[in-house]
Amino acid sequence: MKFEVCILGSGSAVPTRTRTPTAQIINIQENYLLADCAEGTQLQLRNQGIKLQRIDAVFITHLHGDHFYGLPGLISTLHLLGRTKPLLIVGPPGLEKIVMPMVDITGSNLRYQLSFKSTQNKEKECVYENKRIQVFSFPLLHKIATTGYLFAEKQKPRQYLPEVGAFYGIPKFWIDRIKAGEDYIDDEGLRVDNSKLTKDPLKAKSYAFCTDTAYYPEMVNNIMGVNLIYHESSFLEEDRKRADQTKHSTASDAAKIAKMAKANKLVLGHFSARYKDVSRFEEEAKEIFKNVQLAKDGLILKV
Amino acid sequence: MKFEVCILGSGSAVPTRTRTPTAQIINIQENYLLADCAEGTQLQLRNQGIKLQRIDAVFITHLHGDHFYGLPGLISTLHLLGRTKPLLIVGPPGLEKIVMPMVDITGSNLRYQLSFKSTQNKEKECVYENKRIQVFSFPLLHKIATTGYLFAEKQKPRQYLPEVGAFYGIPKFWIDRIKAGEDYIDDEGLRVDNSKLTKDPLKAKSYAFCTDTAYYPEMVNNIMGVNLIYHESSFLEEDRKRADQTKHSTASDAAKIAKMAKANKLVLGHFSARYKDVSRFEEEAKEIFKNVQLAKDGLILKV
Repeated sequence: MKFEVCILGSGSAVPTRTRTPTAQIINIQENYLLADCAEGTQLQLRNQGIKLQRIDAVFITHLHGDHFYGLPGLISTLHLLGRTKPLLIVGPPGLEKIVMPMVDITGSNLRYQLSFKSTQNKEKECVYENKRIQVFSFPLLHKIATTGYLFAEKQKPRQYLPEVGAFYGIPKFWIDRIKAGEDYIDDEGLRVDNSKLTKDPLKAKSYAFCTDTAYYPEMVNNIMGVNLIYHESSFLEEDRKRADQTKHSTASDAAKIAKMAKANKLVLGHFSARYKDVSRFEEEAKEIFKNVQLAKDGLILKV
Repeated sequence: MKFEVCILGSGSAVPTRTRTPTAQIINIQENYLLADCAEGTQLQLRNQGIKLQRIDAVFITHLHGDHFYGLPGLISTLHLLGRTKPLLIVGPPGLEKIVMPMVDITGSNLRYQLSFKSTQNKEKECVYENKRIQVFSFPLLHKIATTGYLFAEKQKPRQYLPEVGAFYGIPKFWIDRIKAGEDYIDDEGLRVDNSKLTKDPLKAKSYAFCTDTAYYPEMVNNIMGVNLIYHESSFLEEDRKRADQTKHSTASDAAKIAKMAKANKLVLGHFSARYKDVSRFEEEAKEIFKNVQLAKDGLILKV
């Protein structure tokens, strides 16, 4: 089952030639979820060969420009390209009120249904759900109200072993019950233990998107056991003062969170444009958490 | 004296991998003027190696997203990069009211003075002026209120010939009067004809930026004798119906305007993304006006 994260923008507020501001597209079992939408996101999607109309929903972390200035353009382009599929945008209260005048002034009557759902940054909350996946928002700690997002597969039922089922002559209508964990009992009362008929399903996977935030251990409970975590690291420890002032994290901060959350892997991003050589972020984080990778525009990560 | 136009975005509303939407940077004698500011303009400027802080003023033609969605990002980035020099944005009424909430919500108190000046699309008007240049707005014909812009050098005074002046022993304080056209008269009443002491100055040059617009001959008087004209040509004649519906021009329309305005050269741009091969725009226009060039992102034109 596909679960991939494509980093569209790995930089911080000021775009550079090599790093654009924050946006990621997450493909979970062909659900396309856009996380943040900086200026230029629609172009970054095209550069990655991802069809804009595939996007099912958008999740905005907070109302700093480098995380949402691409919305008016994306909303308009989807309209111009003839979208009819509804689009949900999840984000902080006030997002609709400041973005939509930019769209409305152009005189476009959108051909598709656009809806907004407001986040709160008090507690973890499911903000998007379908048969296969769930997306949760959870509070981060930044200069303004900010939420992270946890993109999670739903736990699948147990895997039915059809060859064993055939051996016992199990009829089809029983299979869903067996997948749900029941033992099989045939017409004559013979019981076959569920453990013979099924094996453990693949563990549901999850991805945590944590930007922008200061060091905030309170988030750990909300992402415990996550497979992959993207955690901003705008600064190195040597610029701790600047990190504290701006409520951003260092590479060490990010590594501590990944370790506490028992994540499999940590991706660092949102590097301040002041650093020409970002390899030091990896070195600093690895002192605390081994499985670290640096984000770059266009990087695709398997969860 | 430098007078260059750099095409930052040559496409129409929907960005493609090769053409971003409208923006141009015009350098007239080291005055940097931005004409339109589509999403991604700040990045296009960086790609061209143009320092963002060089921009003196911005001129927005109309309130369709592909002409101004880059403003919030540009305004914010100038702030983050420490700008203190004031910035003027000229554009349609209402521009400030829809753009500034996007900036204000981020909590930025801009370090520089940002001011807006509204255009009207009733008649030609000088909207920007300093010692060396003038910028005029003038009405175009589009679905919503739209103005073109004429970027013009001021006519220089006559060129003083210092070697001739020395021959006649002309004192320094006379030079400005001679440049202004006066004959020289020395203390003994000897008159030296101005034509002996000066030569004609270089003719002041001008550039007309005409997008978006339907075929609109009424604009010609406002740009008569222009050196270079950029005129949108979203469509070819074969799609005349679509051009009329959307109040855009064809390559032929643009060529007719350039011819009537006695322009030296025509640049075509704002090509609809429907055309894969834009060479046909050049062919169509050349039937009417010979000196035609097709815009592309990154193209630099000398005026």
